[in-house]
Parts: sequence; C-alpha cells; structure tokens
Amino acid sequence: MKIVKTTSDLNTKLDGLDRTLGFVPTMGYLHEGHLSLVRKAREENTTVAVSIFANPTQFAPDEDLASYPQDIDRDLELLTGEGVDLVWIPTVETMYPDGYQTWVEMDHLSSILEGSYRPTHFRGVATVVAKLFNAVSPDKAYFGQKDAQQAAVIKKMVRELNFRIEIVVCPIVREPDGVAMSSRNTYLDEEERLAARCLSRGLFLVRDAFQKGERRAEVLKTIVNNEVVHEPLARLQYVSCADLTSLAELENEVQACLISMAVFVGKTRLIDNLILGK
Amino acid sequence: MKIVKTTSDLNTKLDGLDRTLGFVPTMGYLHEGHLSLVRKAREENTTVAVSIFANPTQFAPDEDLASYPQDIDRDLELLTGEGVDLVWIPTVETMYPDGYQTWVEMDHLSSILEGSYRPTHFRGVATVVAKLFNAVSPDKAYFGQKDAQQAAVIKKMVRELNFRIEIVVCPIVREPDGVAMSSRNTYLDEEERLAARCLSRGLFLVRDAFQKGERRAEVLKTIVNNEVVHEPLARLQYVSCADLTSLAELENEVQACLISMAVFVGKTRLIDNLILGK
Repeated sequence: MKIVKTTSDLNTKLDGLDRTLGFVPTMGYLHEGHLSLVRKAREENTTVAVSIFANPTQFAPDEDLASYPQDIDRDLELLTGEGVDLVWIPTVETMYPDGYQTWVEMDHLSSILEGSYRPTHFRGVATVVAKLFNAVSPDKAYFGQKDAQQAAVIKKMVRELNFRIEIVVCPIVREPDGVAMSSRNTYLDEEERLAARCLSRGLFLVRDAFQKGERRAEVLKTIVNNEVVHEPLARLQYVSCADLTSLAELENEVQACLISMAVFVGKTRLIDNLILGK
Repeated sequence: MKIVKTTSDLNTKLDGLDRTLGFVPTMGYLHEGHLSLVRKAREENTTVAVSIFANPTQFAPDEDLASYPQDIDRDLELLTGEGVDLVWIPTVETMYPDGYQTWVEMDHLSSILEGSYRPTHFRGVATVVAKLFNAVSPDKAYFGQKDAQQAAVIKKMVRELNFRIEIVVCPIVREPDGVAMSSRNTYLDEEERLAARCLSRGLFLVRDAFQKGERRAEVLKTIVNNEVVHEPLARLQYVSCADLTSLAELENEVQACLISMAVFVGKTRLIDNLILGK
C-alpha cells in the first residue's frame, strides 16, 4: 500500500495505477461503515484509493473540528488489511493554501435539512470532494447512505459539473443494537450511548408502520418524534420525510421517501435515516 | 472534424481520441484571436477540441446575451480549416437543465475590476469552464490574454480545485490599427470603430512611457485616461494598474504590472490590457 501526502507525489503514483480506479474519500477514524465502502470499491475495481482528510471547511467555527477523533496508524492498518492500493493524506496547507478563494456552492439542496442547521457545511463538502475528485480522477467513488444529504449533494454536483465519475452509495452499517456507525459515537459516554438507540429505534418503528401500510408523512414523522421525546438525554433537532432526489419535504401520502433526522444526545449531534418504498 | 452536441455523444467521441488533447473553449463568432488559440493548441497537441457555447450565466440580465453575434456555419468552416478534430456545441438545456444549482465561486479575485461592474460574470465563467473541463478532460486548455482577469480566475480555479490541466494564455491579437480583436467589435458603427482605437492607443503610449523608465502607477494610468478623455464617443469605466497574479491594485513605483481598462464606445463595452515588465 502506497501512502502519499503531496499532490505531486499523488500524481506520480496515480500515473502508474491500473484502471478502473475506485475511490473512497474519508475523514479518517475509520469504522465498519467506511470499510464497507472500501470492500465495495475493492470488489468493483482493479485499483482502490482512499483519502484521509478531516476537511476544516465543512465544520462551522462552533463545531467539533478540534476534537474530531483521529488515529492514522490504526486507519492505515485497517486499510492495509482491506487490500487498498493507495492512501492519500493531504495536509490542510496543501488543500487550502493561504489566499484560497475557490468554492463549489449549491443553491438550494445545500441549504435545506442539515444545511439549515449547518449553513456552510455542504459548501465545504462539495468543494473538498471536487478537489479530491480532480486530484484522484477516479472512475467510481463510494459514499455512505448515513450522510444521505451529502450523497444527494455529491450526486447532483457530479451530474451538474459533468464529472465523469460514477457515484456509488452504500447502505448504513449499524452496531448490533441498531445505532448507525459514526466516528462521533466516540463522544458519547455510556449512558448517552444507550440513549443514542432512540434514533434507529424510531426509524425501525417507521419501517414497520410503512410495511403495514402507513403512508401519511405526518404520522411517519410523529413515530420518530415520539421515540426521541421519551428519551431524557436526547433532543430532536428535526425529522424529515422528503423526496429521495430533491429532498423536498413531502406532505400527505408518500409512496417513496427519505426519513431523516438529527438528534442531540447530550452535546453530541447524531444523524440517521431510512429509505422507504424503494 | 467531428461535431457533437450531447454530453453522451461527446463521451463516445472522446474515448476514441489520441492524447495529448488540447482544448479551446469559445463563445463562437470566431475571429483571429480565437484562431490563434486553436493554432497554438494544434501545434502543441495530438488532438484539438473546441467548444462553442455562448454561456448565458456569465451575462447579467441587462447585458448583451440576446444580441451576442453568432455564425455557426462560418465558425465550423474556420475550424475545419485549422485542422480541429472535435467541435462540441452543447445546448443551454444540456448545460443548465431545469433545477440547475451548482456554481463555482471565487471569493475575491472575481469581485474586483471587471467583477465590480459585472458581479455575477466570473461565477458564470468559472462554472461553465469547470463543466467544460470535466466533460472534455483536456491535457491543456487555451485562453486569450484579452480577457486578462478571466485568465487569472481560471488559472486560480485550476490550481485551487486541483484540475490536472495546464492553462496556456496566448497574446492579444489586434487589428492592423491596434484595436484588440473581439466579437463585440461588430456592435460598433463606422465612427465608433474609429473611436475604439483610443483603448490601444492609450496602452501603447503607456508601453512607450514604461520603456522610457516611467514606473509610477498613477502616471501610467493617467496616460490611458487622457487618451480616452479626448475621444468624444468613448467613456472610460476604469483603468487599473495591478499585480500580475492577484490583480491587486498597485500604488507608487511598479516593476511588473497589468494595465487593464474598460471603455464604453457608444453603447458597446470594450476591454483591453497590457502586461508590463515581464
């Protein structure tokens, strides 16, 4: 496994690689969710590249960039185990040198749901992903359904900016008790970790209700809300029932939708979601 | 010469082309300025691709998109004569389908000089160039020095978004009387066309003064101003003496600089510029 840091080193190493090239961009502190993407990329491509970069521009000043967990040695060990060919670990100075001014912005899709609570988040995500895509030039890139809106933003960016890259979105990987894998789960103390089960519990109840024929958007959202309300350590920030592509909020009867939610458990903000009817 | 319209047709044709690939993006109505770029691309690459697209998003609502001159048949004839391999003529609907939302923005460089009079112009330019670059994936792309700030914005975008494309900027091509070639010159009536000579006349006087040792930014700009002021049909919008890369306005003594200007001749807005000391 080759490990590169500079863009010029990356270019040299990329020139020698066989195609197709599958790419998994990450912020590090890898868990089974990331590894499921790596395995899918391994399965579908001759060569697999992974980037590790905790992108500062997708964090607001009051968010958790400074405390975002990292363990590069462990990450590299895991990636070696998965047969990854190339790992790129750019520095912040390489990615955003002094006087940096170029941003990829999305008008509407980046300002709703997560974007309404994190107004600069998707500008940072779209920008860094465009930079990573241009630098790595993969054939396919892999993202987790856990960040549903991120996946929607990236798919739309790829389509609208004409990137010749196929975006593959892989299912959420969950802990045995249902909690979605997330690097931020490490922020939770023991009691909070138990409380965090209310997110997936709510979503699973929604799935059951949908399977039994419930189609009213308001009712589906209320099921999630009720589950979180009864958990004293948790506070629901939002629950949404949205169109799968545009993420526009749906009303009345729904045939297919994305149920997504954000919940504070203690001081930790967790998100989770579920696709219905597809 | 292959002519393609859709992105999928473009992809098919691109796959069969030999590298290196030189690319000249244009808005059509080609003149010797464009053809100088095509010839340079022809000289430096195995394959040459040209796009013709009058990009609506770089025109403000009160600008001249509707009247922008076009003559596709003549353009294609000229490009055939230059031995171009591929011409891409995308439609507005292909480039900006309903619900289009993705933009490439530049914080500062796009808001000064031309950007202060045309606030959304460089957002349109950067976005369409990013889209063209991603769709065509050239090794080198060719732009004219005539649009000096456009060239600076694109070079910065390429560097900052990690495009693996070399940007080649070619000198301004002038009419025998000094007027810089521009598709917009066709807007000028006979009298205005004569008046338009004041731009280059001013710049040539600046070049002479610089060669004789004049280094004071204010004096260099005053030379341009005086030349335009004495032309009754012309009105100077701005004259700038700026750093060659950042385009930051320079004061006092200058060693190297870009002298750039915008002038209304009648209702037609013309720009021109000159690099000094490099």
